[in-house]
Amino acid sequence: MAAKTIAVGEDELVACCGSTRFAQELAKASPFSSLEEAIAAARDVWFNKVDVNGCLQAFSAHPQIGQQTPSSSAHPTSAQWSKGEQSTAFATATTSSLQQLAEWNARYYQKFGFVFLICASGRSTEEILAELKKRFPNRPIVEFEIAAQEQMKITELRLAKLFSSKAKETSTGDH
Amino acid sequence: MAAKTIAVGEDELVACCGSTRFAQELAKASPFSSLEEAIAAARDVWFNKVDVNGCLQAFSAHPQIGQQTPSSSAHPTSAQWSKGEQSTAFATATTSSLQQLAEWNARYYQKFGFVFLICASGRSTEEILAELKKRFPNRPIVEFEIAAQEQMKITELRLAKLFSSKAKETSTGDH
Repeated sequence: MAAKTIAVGEDELVACCGSTRFAQELAKASPFSSLEEAIAAARDVWFNKVDVNGCLQAFSAHPQIGQQTPSSSAHPTSAQWSKGEQSTAFATATTSSLQQLAEWNARYYQKFGFVFLICASGRSTEEILAELKKRFPNRPIVEFEIAAQEQMKITELRLAKLFSSKAKETSTGDH
Repeated sequence: MAAKTIAVGEDELVACCGSTRFAQELAKASPFSSLEEAIAAARDVWFNKVDVNGCLQAFSAHPQIGQQTPSSSAHPTSAQWSKGEQSTAFATATTSSLQQLAEWNARYYQKFGFVFLICASGRSTEEILAELKKRFPNRPIVEFEIAAQEQMKITELRLAKLFSSKAKETSTGDH
């Protein structure tokens, strides 16, 4: 019997990371024998094969953190995952902290030209705001590199969700 | 008597570095008491205030190295300076080395999404080609940072030319 492999398509991958190039390249490398193999391939594509424009495309698929309104360029699954990833932030948010976050997000976008990106899972609004303020003085290219690292963390969590839902589908279909 | 200062306008500055933001911000800081003061201000604007999109805009104002055809988005003075900066490269070029350079430039653009940028002054075609091949394996964001450093070197040389021509104008006008 051949070892089980998991196939992922371009449309599913663009929900994990909004760069078209990323989704195309990773779909070419599919199927994968494990989540770990997929993540290793994803890291290689993201850090070595996606150019600066591709990174900006991926960043633009995220909503401003603290906002429930999805980015107009976001994949529906990506928008849904964003909400889940920010559930701790939303649970800990006050009107005042959300307003502060909105103000700092606007300043950040004005300076850097893309939304503030952070792997928000498990982080409170206060933590996210503190991190935004800490990163704000960075040089634009330094901040770009940090945002790319955060994007990769988000992508890894989303790949894990995708593989987990695929594993369920497979076992449900296994009579 | 007030110390002599040199005023530079946005249009002159965009020929030194093709980012609109760069030219606007540096023009705001004008006049300068010396070239050194202008360069220090230029470095601050370029590295701290121009975002990633602004860098891409500046990069797109350069011709592919080894090509005499200016970029369609280049300022006329910028196109003329590019030729001068590449005079050593052109003088040392052979048909074969220019063809190799064109091929590697195309590969570079394909990978990184912007033209290969190097401060070409005094460098032979062979040296430029060797540098391109050496930088080619870099990660896109690493290469982006190097390109930004090279852009700054080019900008400094051009600011020096601009200040020198302005000094001549002043002294010619001094009867």
